[in-house]
Amino acid sequence: MEHLSPTLRSTIRRNRHRAVTDRDVLHALLADALLAHVGVTIEHGPLVLPSAYGIDLNGPDDGGSLYLHGSVASPWLRTAGQQVCVTITELDGLVAGRSGFHHSMNYRSAVIQGVARDVTDSAERDRALDAIIDQMIPGRSATLRPATRKEFAATAVLAVPLHEASVKTRDGGPNDEPEDIEAGIWGGHLPVRRVIGVPVSDYASNDNVPAAVRARTRP
Amino acid sequence: MEHLSPTLRSTIRRNRHRAVTDRDVLHALLADALLAHVGVTIEHGPLVLPSAYGIDLNGPDDGGSLYLHGSVASPWLRTAGQQVCVTITELDGLVAGRSGFHHSMNYRSAVIQGVARDVTDSAERDRALDAIIDQMIPGRSATLRPATRKEFAATAVLAVPLHEASVKTRDGGPNDEPEDIEAGIWGGHLPVRRVIGVPVSDYASNDNVPAAVRARTRP
Repeated sequence: MEHLSPTLRSTIRRNRHRAVTDRDVLHALLADALLAHVGVTIEHGPLVLPSAYGIDLNGPDDGGSLYLHGSVASPWLRTAGQQVCVTITELDGLVAGRSGFHHSMNYRSAVIQGVARDVTDSAERDRALDAIIDQMIPGRSATLRPATRKEFAATAVLAVPLHEASVKTRDGGPNDEPEDIEAGIWGGHLPVRRVIGVPVSDYASNDNVPAAVRARTRP
Repeated sequence: MEHLSPTLRSTIRRNRHRAVTDRDVLHALLADALLAHVGVTIEHGPLVLPSAYGIDLNGPDDGGSLYLHGSVASPWLRTAGQQVCVTITELDGLVAGRSGFHHSMNYRSAVIQGVARDVTDSAERDRALDAIIDQMIPGRSATLRPATRKEFAATAVLAVPLHEASVKTRDGGPNDEPEDIEAGIWGGHLPVRRVIGVPVSDYASNDNVPAAVRARTRP
C-alpha cells in the first residue's frame, strides 16, 4: 500500500470494494462466469440483453476476443462497427450491514466496452462458436458433429476486444459505522453460489451421458 | 393451442422458448431475482452496470416502480429524464443439445425500458430504499435504525416504470434436429440454481443473527 490510511475503516473499504486492474482477475472471472449482459444503443436508447459468451485470449482483437452469437435475424447482433458494452457479473454474497446504508452485495464484475466486429472468417467463426459452447460445458465442442451449412448461415457471430475492461470485486462483511459496531448491533453476510445439478437426459435420449457433460456438475 | 403445428419440433420450440406477456410471470421473476443490469447511454455509447434493485408494484410509476440506488457521486445515477434499460436475468440451466447449434441456456429474463425518474420525495425514498434492502433480505429493513441525514444526502434513488417490460423464459431440454435424435446422440440439460449459505457474522459482531437474516438461507 502506497499511502498510510487515515482510519481502519477507509483501509477496509479500500480493500473490500476496489477496482481491480489485474488482467488475471479479469481472465479468471471470464473463465468462471456463464452469462453476459450485452448493451447496445438502439433508436430509443440503451438495450441490455442476456447472452451466452465465449472467450479466446489469443483471438485477433486487442487484449483477446470475447465472442457473442445469435440468430442472423436478431437486430442486436447487427451492431458490427458500433460501440457495445458487455458486462459479466457473478454474485457472491449478500451483505447485511448494521444499517440500511451499509447493505451491499459481494460480487465480481467485468465491464467491457468496445466496438463490435462481425466475425466472417470461417475458421475464426468455428473457434468462436466452440468457445461459446465450451464456456457452458468445457470440452463439449470437441465431441459434437460439425455445423451444417444451414446452421452456419443462420448464425451471426460478433467479437468484442477485451482491451477496454474494468473489473470490480467486493467480498467480506459490511463496512459499518463505528458507532453501530460499538452499539453491539449484529452485522454479517450470506455467501451466494451457483450450483450446477446432475445432467437430465432428454425425453428421447439414451442414458450414456457424455463425460464432459457429467464433469460439469458442481455441487 | 390455436394452430395445429406442422411438426413436433416447432411445437416444442414454441413452448420452450417463448416471450411471456403475463404480468404475473414478470412479478414472480422480479420477486425472485437479486441482481439487475442497468443500461444507460453515455458519451461514447452504452454502459451496463450491475446493481441491486427494489420493486414497489404500487409505486407511482406506470405499471409499478423499479428502484435503483447508489452514491450521488455515481455518474450513471444522474440519468433522470433519460431512457434506461434494466435487465434482470436468472440462469436456470445449461442446455446440452445434440449439436453445437442447439446448445442453449434455460433462463427467465425481464427487459424493462423506460425513462428514469429522480426520487426526491422523502417518504417515497424511504420506501424505495427499504424495498432494495428487502429484495436482498426480506423483512430486514423493518429491523434497522432509520437512515441519518448524512446517509440520506449521500444516496441517489432512481425509479423506472415497470410498464414497458418484456419477459422471456426458456426451460427443459434441447430442441434438436430430428436426424440427430434418430441417430441416437445424447442430449439433455443441467439445472442451475442459486444457493444462499448460512449467515457469517462480522468480525466485530455478536452471534445473535437476526431472524430475517437466518431465514434468507436457501440450501
